[in-house]
Amino acid sequence: MGFPTLKNDRLIKALLRQPTDTTPVWIMRQAGRYLPEYRETRKQAGSFLDLCKNTELACEVTLQPLRRFALDAAILFSDILTIPDAMGLGLYFAEGEGPKFEHPLRSADAIQRLGVPDPAEKLRYVTDAVSLIRRELDGQVPLIGFSGSPWTLSTYMVEGGSSKEYRHIKGLMYDDPATLHLLLDKLAQAVTAYLNAQIEAGAQAVMIFDTWGGVLTPQTYRDFSLDYMSRIVAGLKREIDGQPVPVTLFTKGGAQWLEAIADSGCNAVGLDWTIDIDEARRRIGDRVALQGNLDPCVLYADPDKIRDKAGEIITRFGNHPGHVFNLGHGIHQTVNPEHLGVLIDAVHEFGFDIRK
Amino acid sequence: MGFPTLKNDRLIKALLRQPTDTTPVWIMRQAGRYLPEYRETRKQAGSFLDLCKNTELACEVTLQPLRRFALDAAILFSDILTIPDAMGLGLYFAEGEGPKFEHPLRSADAIQRLGVPDPAEKLRYVTDAVSLIRRELDGQVPLIGFSGSPWTLSTYMVEGGSSKEYRHIKGLMYDDPATLHLLLDKLAQAVTAYLNAQIEAGAQAVMIFDTWGGVLTPQTYRDFSLDYMSRIVAGLKREIDGQPVPVTLFTKGGAQWLEAIADSGCNAVGLDWTIDIDEARRRIGDRVALQGNLDPCVLYADPDKIRDKAGEIITRFGNHPGHVFNLGHGIHQTVNPEHLGVLIDAVHEFGFDIRK
Repeated sequence: MGFPTLKNDRLIKALLRQPTDTTPVWIMRQAGRYLPEYRETRKQAGSFLDLCKNTELACEVTLQPLRRFALDAAILFSDILTIPDAMGLGLYFAEGEGPKFEHPLRSADAIQRLGVPDPAEKLRYVTDAVSLIRRELDGQVPLIGFSGSPWTLSTYMVEGGSSKEYRHIKGLMYDDPATLHLLLDKLAQAVTAYLNAQIEAGAQAVMIFDTWGGVLTPQTYRDFSLDYMSRIVAGLKREIDGQPVPVTLFTKGGAQWLEAIADSGCNAVGLDWTIDIDEARRRIGDRVALQGNLDPCVLYADPDKIRDKAGEIITRFGNHPGHVFNLGHGIHQTVNPEHLGVLIDAVHEFGFDIRK
Repeated sequence: MGFPTLKNDRLIKALLRQPTDTTPVWIMRQAGRYLPEYRETRKQAGSFLDLCKNTELACEVTLQPLRRFALDAAILFSDILTIPDAMGLGLYFAEGEGPKFEHPLRSADAIQRLGVPDPAEKLRYVTDAVSLIRRELDGQVPLIGFSGSPWTLSTYMVEGGSSKEYRHIKGLMYDDPATLHLLLDKLAQAVTAYLNAQIEAGAQAVMIFDTWGGVLTPQTYRDFSLDYMSRIVAGLKREIDGQPVPVTLFTKGGAQWLEAIADSGCNAVGLDWTIDIDEARRRIGDRVALQGNLDPCVLYADPDKIRDKAGEIITRFGNHPGHVFNLGHGIHQTVNPEHLGVLIDAVHEFGFDIRK
């Protein structure tokens, strides 16, 4: 496809559990509101969704954190709800609130009528951004593509936005599971096609965010979330142009179910901060790489304490291949960017040290 | 103290892991907004806080669910934030929002100045309600008293209300742990005195709600939440008038740390729905009773499905002493009360059956 050779391949190697010179690090939501330059570009674009749909500006904000910090990866700037939007639900963002849908799914009929979007049509703005970012990166670091998980997408689609109680989606799950399975099946098809389109457009690794899998019971997590993520993993292109494309699954609140997640066929498992990474490594580190797992609130502490906490996680993981450092959730918008710089540098420093 | 003899002692027996004829059941927030009679009384009282502070009306709403359902316990109607209010933080409820404080704790100075309230003074309205409810219950079922955990109280006190990111409290925890420990120590003293006052006023069992313990890391959970709950447990009157007073700890999102919670010295551990109760019993059922653990959203399903899910939990727990049926969180305000009736009856029916 004529993309330049990758110069920093730490992320890809670590996701494949191959040795690296130090621990690679990237940060969920590294392109975002905590950066003044992001807020500036966002103003230029208009709404958050306008920014996502503007290829040049989405590329610009994706690259912004790389100009400040020695990050080992870029991640596509986009929203997890692009697929439901492409399905016709009318995504919008009310100022100061979370995402909302103009047409939430409130009947079996609406779910039956739903089509699986062709990413070459309605999601072209995403794949265009992927290709542009990949070119602009010029091989500096790999580009990560992503999607929301079917379960997580379905919670927003049925609730009509964020939720605290999951009344409608869980009501549907307990009362009419067949209809929810129909929706999740369509979403699994859509996510598979979407991530494959991102891979074809230039994404060198992909990640599935299951932000709300942790609100389920053990059985409903397996049946309504993990099973569909496993189907997606099975349907992804895992190699392009002779290069492997690693897949990471991240279920926030899923630390109890790590073994099942690791059995999905993914290369890496994301961890929030409710589990110690040495325990996670003991449980599933023989099969998958681990990504995580610093509490994002550590970034509110003094630089010395941030360094200590980074060192603690690297020490806990130990001198083994297969660790990608990250926060256990997206960086908060009120964090001081200089604190993130301290963290990134500490990770590389401790990562080199532990390999000596 | 001249209270009438307890007629239905299933709850107390189950909490002590003694055999019962069937599985006892009560429901977190059983006195609440899903009941039309509660909404009527609430209107009479004025604000939510007015209702908590009105002895007669707090007693009235405590008893309301017992008139509808064959519940095996009453739980004091109150708020978890009465202690911070008594400490002078100025609790109020903005309509349609969660609890807020007029004077959140935002400095080490403010925390140092904080006194430990004497429950005989500023929390008299709570102990008065406990005694009145106990008399009105006339031995029908036992009365449960409760408090928020020090960690959970501190999150509201430092954030000034509910939180999504826990920016201020976790910033304090990571940056100045000594000051947070000072606050938690005062709260542990206050909660111990408060629960002992409830026991002296007539509470026959007590429960500590650690609603936000699950947002911590394993180490910070032990240091900043569980350790203080263990101190409280060690300081409680465990017997009054020759009757044992069982203690239940409930950390929402704490299923990963059950062993540590069970080692606190409590009699019973509350479970949310993210763990199967048979697994919890295998892990800690030799030491403590278990309370839980139905997903509250099951109550949105058809009666047949509600019965099935109740039966599943009772079957998983099996024919052993030490199970108190409950939801894994408070009942949602949009639930149809008739559905709760179906659940309560199903629990008793399946509970009898499994003991045959």
